[in-house]
Amino acid sequence: MLPRGRPRALGAAALLLLLLVIGFFLFRGDLDCERSEREASGGGGDPRSLPRSLTPRVLPDERPRPRGTAAFDGDPPADPGGHNGSDCIPPRPRPPKCELLQVAIVCAGHNSSRDVITLVKSMLFYRKNPLHLHLVTDAVARNILETLFHMWMVPAVQISFYNADELKPQVSWIPNKHYSGLYGLMKLVLPSALPPDLARVIVLDTDVTFASNIAELWALFAHFSDKQVIGLVENQSDWYLGNLWRNHRPWPALGRGFNTGVILLRLDRLRQAGWEQMWKLTATRELLTLPATSLADQDIFNAIIKEHPWLVQPLPCVWNVQLSDHTLAERCYSEASDLKVIHWNSPKKLRVKNKHVESFRNLYLTFLEYDGNLLRRELFGCPRPPPPGAEQLQRALAQLDEEDACFEFRRQQLTVHRVHITFLPHKPPPPQPHDVTLVAQLSMDRMQMLEALCRHWPGPMSLALYLTDAEAQQFLRFVETSVVLSARQDVAYHVVYREGPLYPINQLRNVALAQALTPYVFLSDIDFLPAYSLYDYLRASIQQLELGSGRKAALVVPAFETLHYRFSFPSSKAELLALLDAGSLHTFRYHEWPRGHAPTDYARWREAQAPYHVQWAADYEPYVVVPRDCPRYDPRFAGFGWNKVAHVMELDAQEYELLVLPEAFVIHLPHAPSLDISRFRSSPTYRDCLQALKDEFHQDLSRRYGAAALKYLTALQQPRGPT
Amino acid sequence: MLPRGRPRALGAAALLLLLLVIGFFLFRGDLDCERSEREASGGGGDPRSLPRSLTPRVLPDERPRPRGTAAFDGDPPADPGGHNGSDCIPPRPRPPKCELLQVAIVCAGHNSSRDVITLVKSMLFYRKNPLHLHLVTDAVARNILETLFHMWMVPAVQISFYNADELKPQVSWIPNKHYSGLYGLMKLVLPSALPPDLARVIVLDTDVTFASNIAELWALFAHFSDKQVIGLVENQSDWYLGNLWRNHRPWPALGRGFNTGVILLRLDRLRQAGWEQMWKLTATRELLTLPATSLADQDIFNAIIKEHPWLVQPLPCVWNVQLSDHTLAERCYSEASDLKVIHWNSPKKLRVKNKHVESFRNLYLTFLEYDGNLLRRELFGCPRPPPPGAEQLQRALAQLDEEDACFEFRRQQLTVHRVHITFLPHKPPPPQPHDVTLVAQLSMDRMQMLEALCRHWPGPMSLALYLTDAEAQQFLRFVETSVVLSARQDVAYHVVYREGPLYPINQLRNVALAQALTPYVFLSDIDFLPAYSLYDYLRASIQQLELGSGRKAALVVPAFETLHYRFSFPSSKAELLALLDAGSLHTFRYHEWPRGHAPTDYARWREAQAPYHVQWAADYEPYVVVPRDCPRYDPRFAGFGWNKVAHVMELDAQEYELLVLPEAFVIHLPHAPSLDISRFRSSPTYRDCLQALKDEFHQDLSRRYGAAALKYLTALQQPRGPT
Repeated sequence: MLPRGRPRALGAAALLLLLLVIGFFLFRGDLDCERSEREASGGGGDPRSLPRSLTPRVLPDERPRPRGTAAFDGDPPADPGGHNGSDCIPPRPRPPKCELLQVAIVCAGHNSSRDVITLVKSMLFYRKNPLHLHLVTDAVARNILETLFHMWMVPAVQISFYNADELKPQVSWIPNKHYSGLYGLMKLVLPSALPPDLARVIVLDTDVTFASNIAELWALFAHFSDKQVIGLVENQSDWYLGNLWRNHRPWPALGRGFNTGVILLRLDRLRQAGWEQMWKLTATRELLTLPATSLADQDIFNAIIKEHPWLVQPLPCVWNVQLSDHTLAERCYSEASDLKVIHWNSPKKLRVKNKHVESFRNLYLTFLEYDGNLLRRELFGCPRPPPPGAEQLQRALAQLDEEDACFEFRRQQLTVHRVHITFLPHKPPPPQPHDVTLVAQLSMDRMQMLEALCRHWPGPMSLALYLTDAEAQQFLRFVETSVVLSARQDVAYHVVYREGPLYPINQLRNVALAQALTPYVFLSDIDFLPAYSLYDYLRASIQQLELGSGRKAALVVPAFETLHYRFSFPSSKAELLALLDAGSLHTFRYHEWPRGHAPTDYARWREAQAPYHVQWAADYEPYVVVPRDCPRYDPRFAGFGWNKVAHVMELDAQEYELLVLPEAFVIHLPHAPSLDISRFRSSPTYRDCLQALKDEFHQDLSRRYGAAALKYLTALQQPRGPT
Repeated sequence: MLPRGRPRALGAAALLLLLLVIGFFLFRGDLDCERSEREASGGGGDPRSLPRSLTPRVLPDERPRPRGTAAFDGDPPADPGGHNGSDCIPPRPRPPKCELLQVAIVCAGHNSSRDVITLVKSMLFYRKNPLHLHLVTDAVARNILETLFHMWMVPAVQISFYNADELKPQVSWIPNKHYSGLYGLMKLVLPSALPPDLARVIVLDTDVTFASNIAELWALFAHFSDKQVIGLVENQSDWYLGNLWRNHRPWPALGRGFNTGVILLRLDRLRQAGWEQMWKLTATRELLTLPATSLADQDIFNAIIKEHPWLVQPLPCVWNVQLSDHTLAERCYSEASDLKVIHWNSPKKLRVKNKHVESFRNLYLTFLEYDGNLLRRELFGCPRPPPPGAEQLQRALAQLDEEDACFEFRRQQLTVHRVHITFLPHKPPPPQPHDVTLVAQLSMDRMQMLEALCRHWPGPMSLALYLTDAEAQQFLRFVETSVVLSARQDVAYHVVYREGPLYPINQLRNVALAQALTPYVFLSDIDFLPAYSLYDYLRASIQQLELGSGRKAALVVPAFETLHYRFSFPSSKAELLALLDAGSLHTFRYHEWPRGHAPTDYARWREAQAPYHVQWAADYEPYVVVPRDCPRYDPRFAGFGWNKVAHVMELDAQEYELLVLPEAFVIHLPHAPSLDISRFRSSPTYRDCLQALKDEFHQDLSRRYGAAALKYLTALQQPRGPT
């Protein structure tokens, strides 16, 4: 007899089993979800592989894929198929708030430096995490980027530089036909070049633009199985299929291969796995039958992956939308709800033909023209050490009194402007003992002076340009379309980004002066055209006057002005004197402010055959040639007034001789009064502030030069004209 | 005897039970997740309430909350507590790709119109969905915004306007002390004002800025229980606690109350629930004891919620980070990983004091200065009807030949510029039969002319300004700080946003001309200063010459020029003639291009006592006064050359008399050549293109005026000077 209890118990057991099975099927997908989330926030190391089933939907690969290389393509939560139990894709994981993300970029030369800044702007715009940028640079890029980041002072961004020249020998043996040259190949050596304790890094090409938070990309590390070391997006062209043209023989790759514009690298595992030996072996072997790499590092990465497919974690296509010449990217972006990273991987860059390129370009232009100052945004709730100098600056700013009538002036002089030195390609002048660089500053409204200036001054120039980020791009186009300007590689343009209401004239002069590379500088202003012979004449004079032998002298270049737009520039001193006598030319500011140049003694200059000494007098502000190590301009003078006067006073205090050159001259061309000068001419506060700044300058001068500075104070107390 | 099987079966059952229980606890949270996701993407109507447990973490309310009003605060996935089973918050839900999102904004007047554009720019920047904007506007805002959106042509954005004046009677009975005036209160009547088939809408104040995708906000509708009709963020100040100052008596509210800068409205349910009666009853009752609303609609919303707490769905604090004067928002944003919406709800707006305000301001400035043209981005994979005119434009652009040397010109003339009419507050001139508006156009480099122009012309002006979005803000500050300019409300400034390499001079003139509101216009240029008496003299002349009676005439204002910056403007014709004789003044372009004004016959003008007729001649380009309905300028002439000549030719073709006024004059002030003119003076292509454009213009003229236009062709073939 079967006891009654038994079937009941069995029934209960069966019911429970059924429930459990139902429960399992109901919840299975969510377990995956939860695990993925845990991985994403907890940070890696989980040995389990990615959820199965992630057959590529967006860029289907016609060839069978080896196990372990399935890509999850598209933007998970927006997948047309929707979210279902067996197809669970982690819902937008993010690393924990305040986790430090690591990014590496290889960058060399002037043009790549501009590109990398646009990339960094896009990354910073969307980021919510602290970042550590590892920049592998040549000397040019390092000089540019180190200066820029130093002045940029973005909170929660740390920068490390690595010398690309030192890495060159490791890759220079590889024949390469790609436009990125040797620098592209350097991505291969990052595991050894980056610090040994750095375990993970996102590697980016300079021609990518972010359209989303980089933390979402970082979170994909959590999906790596314990064998996977490289995260990559599939290549969005048929290049590696080898059917683009007859006899096209690409490097070996898995299916369409992968693109290396965006890479997730597990550096720790790569080092353990003997990466260096691995890629060198593969490259050497392939180069037995292939003449060179066509796509630099990408060919080698793909050859390795073909051989060791378990190394790669395919990433969703939206993380590297490739706008190459024969792109198939539309399959990706038309299904995804969200583009994450755009990659301009055609040599044509923004000029690539593509029916949607206008929309992508708009995103790129957004960051190209974005005011980088606005990225000085704090990450709330993420305490990080402030950028160098930022605390000191904050303290100084905090001490300012907003009610002070001169607040604007005081704030302007404390402003740390972003500076992009050598914005355009530039060849430093060959070292010559008497060479002289013309130093000046300008903003957009004086751009049209540049061509004439280039015609008048055949020597090196160092020019500071006060521009917005958008204007810097206008300037770039202006130079590119000018035959005169684009022919000159000895003109260094340093962009100082606009910030604040006053034109920081002396800060600009100091930037241009600091970047002059010849032993002497001619401190000029942008509205002046030099005599055609001035460059040669100055070098000859420097030599004749033996300034090289430690003689402290400022050579005065007499200044004139014309009130007419159309006038033919005198080709000699004799012609100039004739125009002066005819009333077509005047000595500079003769009508409004003769004191500024009176000590030059124009009457004596007319007759002079040799350089002659003049004495400093109050308000003297000649244009001078001095050694490069001359005193800097006082940055407290922003806007208009007294900016040069103070500098010449300082030269005098340091006992520079003032020597007027008999054949030298510059002529000021007319222009409408600038907006700033118009704004302040009518402002009584402006005059009061200028007076206050002058007084403070005098006090500082007395402090530095003692009794010798007394004469400046005495001079100041004499009756004087308008400032 | 107990059978052996029984305990085994029981044991199995117990084991299964245990597994099931464990399974249940393991998976419970994910069920919530999954359901929430389904709700988010499936779209509402689900009768289940939000997952429990969402105790406020960020802005804890000290008072007990009624059931059903628990807020989920902070940014879910970044919650420091992390994701756990019982506290599940849906992971970043999004509505399906391409779902249309509905947004309503109340906007009145010139200043709010500027604000709303910045808000819309921030919203468009992050959005990935089609949007339908419902704008409740007064006549001024409608005029501005309708023009702007029409020219903006952003893909996948639909605009509907609702007349605020018609809604006024519904709220004007409520006494209100808030700075938003009646317009704030209008949010209360949206359920009846918006189309009856509109079920859900996001309502925004004009002073909010998006820092994220609005689709994430829309997705929160999915969390509404079936009783909830309003989604709101808790108020982030102690205002409604009533302890801000002695005798502070706020309106009733639940705890800290809610802020109505960002509202999710279930319009369908509100209408069903008899919303109109509900809010009117509550308001009427409270107004028995309270004198007026202090915070407009927000007081009334809070009073209703206090009474019917089940109506509200509290939203995470990040969706309305309130930077009011006594804000407690830091509790919200320092814990959240992501700010979604910033609300500048202090009357001080951006000048509010807050230790983090700089970072918030940077986000705001991002969109204030953002080039709105870049928002003309397609939503890939979301087919939507193109904006009106966009298809036609695309067709015309597609027909252009990029290799054509004149491509830039042809493209520029097709460019549809965004136009923001009456960018600053403006009072239309009172209707007067002989009144005349000065019409001109300028860009940033002529801004300093405005003050002088205002001093010389006391009448109405309509000025088109060609600016970037960032420059428009500089212009705003320039006007605000100028005593002269800010005193004038009869000067209408119309901002035409920059796009393309050529200055679209005739398009700008047409914008300014179309916006002139007086019967006559004086078509001038920005570099000219009119005689002080010109405005009065022109009105008198119009009356005397009986132009009102249908006489078709163009009154010529003779033009002169000075080559000196500093010159004292002649106060009469006699003084002008004396300066002319002394050589300090010249007739305009006497030296370079006398043909342009020769037909004015300056010799006759010297002696003339009465208006005299002159005949058209080739290249004549006088400054004229004409009726407002005169022919428009030909937009094909962009950049420099022939832009006025073509217009005067058209006046002549339409048989306008040309009458020179004997006492009228304008004087051109000197300025440096603009960047564009410098760029093109050296370009031979430029001359060729201008010639091609001229030829095409002549062909069009012949087509329109037949044989009568022959004389222009004949005139053209005579030998001529430079253009």
